[in-house]
Amino acid sequence: MNKKKKITIYDLAKKINYSPSTISRALNDDKSISKKAIKIIKEAAEEMGYRRNSLAASLRNSKSNTIGIMISRINRPFIASLISGVEDYARKEGYNVIISQSDDIYENEVNNAKVLFDTRISGLIVSLAMETKDFAHFQQFVDQRIPIVFVDRVPEEFNSYRVLIDNYSAGYKATKHLIEQGCRRIAHFAGAQHRNVYKDRMKGYLDALREYNLPIDKELIVKFKTLSFEEGYKAAKKVTSLDLVPDGLFSANDTAALGAIIYAKKHQIKIPEELAIIGFNDDPMASIVDPGLSTITHPAYQMGKISAQRVLNHTDEMYDNSVSEVTILNTDLIVRESSKKKG
Amino acid sequence: MNKKKKITIYDLAKKINYSPSTISRALNDDKSISKKAIKIIKEAAEEMGYRRNSLAASLRNSKSNTIGIMISRINRPFIASLISGVEDYARKEGYNVIISQSDDIYENEVNNAKVLFDTRISGLIVSLAMETKDFAHFQQFVDQRIPIVFVDRVPEEFNSYRVLIDNYSAGYKATKHLIEQGCRRIAHFAGAQHRNVYKDRMKGYLDALREYNLPIDKELIVKFKTLSFEEGYKAAKKVTSLDLVPDGLFSANDTAALGAIIYAKKHQIKIPEELAIIGFNDDPMASIVDPGLSTITHPAYQMGKISAQRVLNHTDEMYDNSVSEVTILNTDLIVRESSKKKG
Repeated sequence: MNKKKKITIYDLAKKINYSPSTISRALNDDKSISKKAIKIIKEAAEEMGYRRNSLAASLRNSKSNTIGIMISRINRPFIASLISGVEDYARKEGYNVIISQSDDIYENEVNNAKVLFDTRISGLIVSLAMETKDFAHFQQFVDQRIPIVFVDRVPEEFNSYRVLIDNYSAGYKATKHLIEQGCRRIAHFAGAQHRNVYKDRMKGYLDALREYNLPIDKELIVKFKTLSFEEGYKAAKKVTSLDLVPDGLFSANDTAALGAIIYAKKHQIKIPEELAIIGFNDDPMASIVDPGLSTITHPAYQMGKISAQRVLNHTDEMYDNSVSEVTILNTDLIVRESSKKKG
Repeated sequence: MNKKKKITIYDLAKKINYSPSTISRALNDDKSISKKAIKIIKEAAEEMGYRRNSLAASLRNSKSNTIGIMISRINRPFIASLISGVEDYARKEGYNVIISQSDDIYENEVNNAKVLFDTRISGLIVSLAMETKDFAHFQQFVDQRIPIVFVDRVPEEFNSYRVLIDNYSAGYKATKHLIEQGCRRIAHFAGAQHRNVYKDRMKGYLDALREYNLPIDKELIVKFKTLSFEEGYKAAKKVTSLDLVPDGLFSANDTAALGAIIYAKKHQIKIPEELAIIGFNDDPMASIVDPGLSTITHPAYQMGKISAQRVLNHTDEMYDNSVSEVTILNTDLIVRESSKKKG
């Protein structure tokens, strides 16, 4: 069956010499657009068979044409890619994006939610702060039927759209890789355990150890506050100073893994011979540091794109039926020199 | 003279068990705060001798208690530090921050300005998109007496507060360093020349060459669109393929310099012996890459802090007298292995 591709505002923009946002405004009879332009644009839209998404259009009319993003920290490459994904999709559909960061602090997140609510955003995309354990500050959006998509760091008890990666499988895969390279005492740099992403990565780590009958040693599991470079550096010092040192390390992010690499290099600990290391995220630094950092890669840009899509095409069923719609994306293992002990 | 320190909302928050934003709202008799809390907070404020900044307070009453930031790209460490500086100062004063990025595209910047204007922000902090040559989209803020601070990438013909570094001196200093290390054919990776920061860095580069009677070779000056890693990689290929190859390279940012380092390593060009390299910004990668990248460091966090201060303590003279108030900060040279040819 030859399914006809849906014509988007973007297709219209390519055809006629107007920007997607101008076209969007013209189709909404916005006063800032000249009558002549509205006429040209509407005629072209009809000719090309453009049909507006009526839900998105009604959002557009009542709200501010803006998607709000709440994230923990913008200085993580993963977050920057996720935001690019949201922006590219949103702009294509004639929407703008505003961003607020919590710095992983609960109170900032609550204040940011208030600000975005007051700006009458059309939809909200959230990745939770490390600290957050209570979700009442999101209820105001639900009450106003403003769609929410939680992405990556999601709550487990709040009806919403969720877009995330399979963190459990990824943690399992990373640990199994180290075991297959010959590691027998594997340390883990873990994030806050009330946050789904870190809890699931740790679960995967533990299950891989169990499957290969390797002992679980609590001294080798370091719990982090924010998985920063500095914390990674200190934790590497801690675990390599134990009586029984680890021969492998799975860090729940690349930033902390990088701290461990720099510590090891400074103290003549050979990577990967004495300590094989794998991180998480495939930050640009992972391929630049020497030795290159093995890691788990995931489609952050695509996660952002899907999140924007969910926000703009949401249905009200979400709130009526108290359901959650979850999208789970796969990850890949990238093996570089930091963990390659065998051919 | 023993000058008494001014009591801030932050000092109050430390003393009594309320957050700065709650205190700020209580002092404004915000309805969301209980009468009991307002009483406690006002009494404590009086006792400690807290005096409100009346200008800031009047802003607070009429606007949304929010500072808007417009930047080019959040995925640059320099920008992340700048934003942290703004946020730390703003939160201390009971303000929130929302961010929008232009991706260096003029049209996005215009749309972002509209969105932030519509959210009734109390003040605006802007670092211009690479493309922007026209500033009419900022006039709406001036008309409403919403203070604007331009930071780092600033317009030259728009009355406003400006906070920036001495880019000319920095470019001169970087180039002079390469000359002192023995370089005689120095290439330059340059940003868009209508943007003050890149124009001034290039001027510094040219003047250093002139001062040391070194020839200026147009083939060695590569003009970039966005100074990305990929552009740096390609430009390194271009200049090292010339008949007369360069022995030094001053890149207007670290990201593009990193592209050059990776290219050189891949093609057995020895750094610094055959090609000495210096970047700009002191991104975290500069100290992680091998060889470490020499660079210019500047106080991005402090620039953000000063910008927030200017916004919150602005006076209306700005608009009445058509003046610009410019704050210029110094930079420092950091020498690492990528340029160290001599002792």
